[in-house]
Amino acid sequence: MATQKPSVPKGTRDFSPSEMSRRNYIFETITSVFRKYGFAQIETPAMENLSTLMGKYGEEGDKLLFKILNSGDFMRGVDVTGADSLTSLQLAATIAKRGLRYDLTVPFARYVVQHRNEITFPFKRFQVQPVWRADNPQKGRYREFYQCDADVIGSNSLLNEFELLKIIDEVFDKLSLDVTVKINNRKILAGISEIIGEKERITDITVAIDKLEKIGVEKVREELLGKGISNDSLVKLDPVFQMKGDTARKLQFLASYLSSSETGMAGLAEIEKLLDYLRIDPVNTAIELDITLARGLNYYTGAIIEVKTNEVEIGSICGGGRYDDLTGIFGMPDVSGVGISFGADRIYDVLLQLDRFPESTSLHTQLLFVNFGEHEILHILPLLRKLRKEGIIAELYPDAAKMKKQLSYADQCKIPYVAIVGEQEIAAGKITLKDMKSGEQQMYSIQELLAFLAS
Amino acid sequence: MATQKPSVPKGTRDFSPSEMSRRNYIFETITSVFRKYGFAQIETPAMENLSTLMGKYGEEGDKLLFKILNSGDFMRGVDVTGADSLTSLQLAATIAKRGLRYDLTVPFARYVVQHRNEITFPFKRFQVQPVWRADNPQKGRYREFYQCDADVIGSNSLLNEFELLKIIDEVFDKLSLDVTVKINNRKILAGISEIIGEKERITDITVAIDKLEKIGVEKVREELLGKGISNDSLVKLDPVFQMKGDTARKLQFLASYLSSSETGMAGLAEIEKLLDYLRIDPVNTAIELDITLARGLNYYTGAIIEVKTNEVEIGSICGGGRYDDLTGIFGMPDVSGVGISFGADRIYDVLLQLDRFPESTSLHTQLLFVNFGEHEILHILPLLRKLRKEGIIAELYPDAAKMKKQLSYADQCKIPYVAIVGEQEIAAGKITLKDMKSGEQQMYSIQELLAFLAS
Repeated sequence: MATQKPSVPKGTRDFSPSEMSRRNYIFETITSVFRKYGFAQIETPAMENLSTLMGKYGEEGDKLLFKILNSGDFMRGVDVTGADSLTSLQLAATIAKRGLRYDLTVPFARYVVQHRNEITFPFKRFQVQPVWRADNPQKGRYREFYQCDADVIGSNSLLNEFELLKIIDEVFDKLSLDVTVKINNRKILAGISEIIGEKERITDITVAIDKLEKIGVEKVREELLGKGISNDSLVKLDPVFQMKGDTARKLQFLASYLSSSETGMAGLAEIEKLLDYLRIDPVNTAIELDITLARGLNYYTGAIIEVKTNEVEIGSICGGGRYDDLTGIFGMPDVSGVGISFGADRIYDVLLQLDRFPESTSLHTQLLFVNFGEHEILHILPLLRKLRKEGIIAELYPDAAKMKKQLSYADQCKIPYVAIVGEQEIAAGKITLKDMKSGEQQMYSIQELLAFLAS
Repeated sequence: MATQKPSVPKGTRDFSPSEMSRRNYIFETITSVFRKYGFAQIETPAMENLSTLMGKYGEEGDKLLFKILNSGDFMRGVDVTGADSLTSLQLAATIAKRGLRYDLTVPFARYVVQHRNEITFPFKRFQVQPVWRADNPQKGRYREFYQCDADVIGSNSLLNEFELLKIIDEVFDKLSLDVTVKINNRKILAGISEIIGEKERITDITVAIDKLEKIGVEKVREELLGKGISNDSLVKLDPVFQMKGDTARKLQFLASYLSSSETGMAGLAEIEKLLDYLRIDPVNTAIELDITLARGLNYYTGAIIEVKTNEVEIGSICGGGRYDDLTGIFGMPDVSGVGISFGADRIYDVLLQLDRFPESTSLHTQLLFVNFGEHEILHILPLLRKLRKEGIIAELYPDAAKMKKQLSYADQCKIPYVAIVGEQEIAAGKITLKDMKSGEQQMYSIQELLAFLAS
C-alpha cells in the first residue's frame, strides 16, 4: 500500500494529552456546577434522521448540515437514464437519510417528545457533546466542536432563569474569569416596536439599536429610514437612543416609556423579578440589562442572556434564553423551556491566552522507576505495587534503555520524581529518589518514600 | 410545518439520565485505572479522511464505513451525461471524501504518525470515544458504540503486556465482575504450524483448533483434510489435540513439542516471562493460557488477550494484543505496540443483568424545597444558598404547583428528602423535613438540617 501523509479533515482537530487535561478541566467545572443545581445528563446519537434536522436552522443551516451517505448500494433505484445532469440537491434528498447533529437543542427537543412518557417535568437536563457544521473553518471556528447545554423544560417560572444565571456566575467564578453577564427580554424589544407603531419590525429595529455604539445615532436613523420605518416612528424611538445610565436608571426609564405596552411591561416585570431574586441570593458578577442584546431573536421569546469576558477580545462565551415552543415541530405543543450553552472551545482559548489553567489540571504520573534490567525489575514490581496501592501514580520505564533516555522521558512527561533501584539500593533495601527539578537525590525506605510522597 | 413522529436512526440510542449515570460509572472506573497506570488521554475527530480509513479493515470493513457527503455542490464536475446508470461505488469515491471513524486504532496510528515529533515514546495513551459501523443492528450490536482503548506504542518490553493484564484485573475487580482472562501468543500458533510442516496455514490450523471443543477431534481432522492439510501433518498435530491440564502442564508440553521451532519457543518464553511477572506481583484473577485463542490473528504478532465474564452468556468484554507495525501504512515503520480495548456496551449489559451497578452511581439531588409561592421563595432562597455552599445538591421546585405534583416530582426523581417552608416554619425560623421513604416529618433549624444531611 502506498504511504499516505496523514492528516485530519479541514476544520477538525486532534487533542493531545495536555490539551485533553485542560479541556477536561473545563468540562468538569461546568458539569459539576450543572449537577450541583440538580441537572441530569443525557446523550443523544451523533447521527439524527435528516427529517429531524432539516428546516430547523434556516436555509443557511440546512446547507451546513453534514449528510451521511446511505449505506449499501445507495444509488439503487435512483434513475439517471437520460438525465443531462443530476443536481446535488436532487440527489442528496435520495441518497442521504441521516446527518450529523448541528446543535444539541433540536436533538433535545426530539428526545423530549420521543421520551415524553418517561420524563418527569420540569425536566432539568444537561448535555455535553460535539456538534458538526460544514462551515468555512477559520480561527476559533471549527467543523467539530463541543457544546455544553443546560435546559429546564416544562416550567414557566423565572426561578429557572435565576438558577441559570447562578450557574453561569458559579462556573466563571470557578474558572477565575472576569466576565460581563448581560440580560435582555424579547418582550421589551417587542414593547419598543409596539410603542413606536412598528410592531412587525422588531428585528429591523433591534438590529439597528444594536449598531448604536458602533455607527452612531445618525447612521442608525438613516438605516431605519432606508428600511421603510417612518420618520414619526423614529421620533418616538429617540428616547431609547438617548437612554443612559446603569440598570436601575434604564428600568426607571423603561417603566415610563413602555407603560402603554402590555407586552413591554410584562418583559420589564420579568427583568425586575429576576433582579429581586438576585438581591436575596446575590451573585459575584453584576448582571446588566442591555436592550441591544438580540441574540437568538428568531427563537427566544422571553429572557435573553449573553456572557462575554472582560479580558480578551473574543465573541460571547456563553449564551441562552427562553423559548416557548421547542417541541411543537415534533408534535408536542406548549412546552416552554429556558436554557444556556457554554462555548467550551472559546473558553479554552481565553484561559490559554490568559495563562489561567490551574497548574495541574489532571492526575499525572508522580514517579518513574528507572529500568536497569530483569534482575532489578523483580525488586521494583513489589515496590510499584505498594505505591499504587496508596494511590500514587507510578510507572516503571518498560525498556532497559540508556539512563539518559529514561530521564528524558521523565522530563518530557513532566514526571517530578525518578526512583532508582540498582544493586546498591537492593543491598540496602532502599530506593534512591531523584527530584527532577532540583536534581537532588536522597535514599528512602519504602515507608519513608510513601510518607514523603504523601506530604 | 408538518408534525413528525420523532425517532433516532436504526442502531443508535438515546441515553437517559439513569443510563448515563451507569455508563459514567463504567467509563470512570476504566479511565481511573488507565490514569493510575500512567496512561494519558487523547481524542481524535469523529470524521477522518476516507483515505485514512479505507483498506484498513478489509473489504467487508470498507463497506461498513459511514461516508459523509462532501459539503456544498458535491455533484459539480461529476459527469452523468449519457450514463445509463451510475453505480454507488463509482459515485461514492467522488462525492464522499470523509467518513466516521470505525475504531480507535487506525485514528490512533494516524495520530501517532502526524504528531510523531511532539510525542515522547514509549507513548501510553488511552482513548474513550464512540465509533460508527454500518453493520446490521441486532441485540447488543449497535451502529454507534463506545470503545475504551489503552495502548503502549514504541516499546517491545513484555512489561507492557504485564501492566495491561494488571489494568484488566483491576478494572473487573472494581466492577465486581467474575471474569476469565485468557492469553495466547501468535508465535506459539506459528510454531505449531511450523512443527507440523504447514507454516503458511497458520490461520486454517488455528481456526480448526478453535473448534475442537465444539465439534470434536474427528470433525476438525476432516475439516483440515478438506482444506488440503496432509495426513502426515495431521498426525504431527495430534499431540496438540490431546493436550490437557492447567497452564503449567500445557507449558511443559509445549516446551518439548515446540523445541525445534525458534518462533514457537520465543512465544513460549514470552508467556513464561509474563507469568513470572505475575508471580511477583499477582493479580486477583487467574490468567489462563489458551492456545485456541485466535482473535485478531490478522494483525496481532505477539500476545493475544481475551476476557470473558463467567456469569453471563455473552461474547468477550475486553480484548487486545501486540501488533508489530501499526503505523507502517502511514509511513512510520517498525513501531511496535500493544493494546487492550474494553467493550463498554457489553459490560453495561452484563452489570445490568447481574444487578451489579452500585446503588448511587452518580451525584444526585438530595433535597427538594416545596414551592408555595413568591412570599415563601424569598425565605427559601437564602436557605438553598446555605445548603449548596455546604455541597448539598438541593433544588427548589420552580412552580407553585399543587403539593401532590411537587411530591410526585421528588418521588419520580428519587429525591430522598423534601423540605417544607410555609407560614408556620417561617414564623418559627425552621424547616420541616419530610423523608420520602418513611413519610416521617421533622422540624429542624438550618444548622440542624445541615448536620442531619451531612450524617
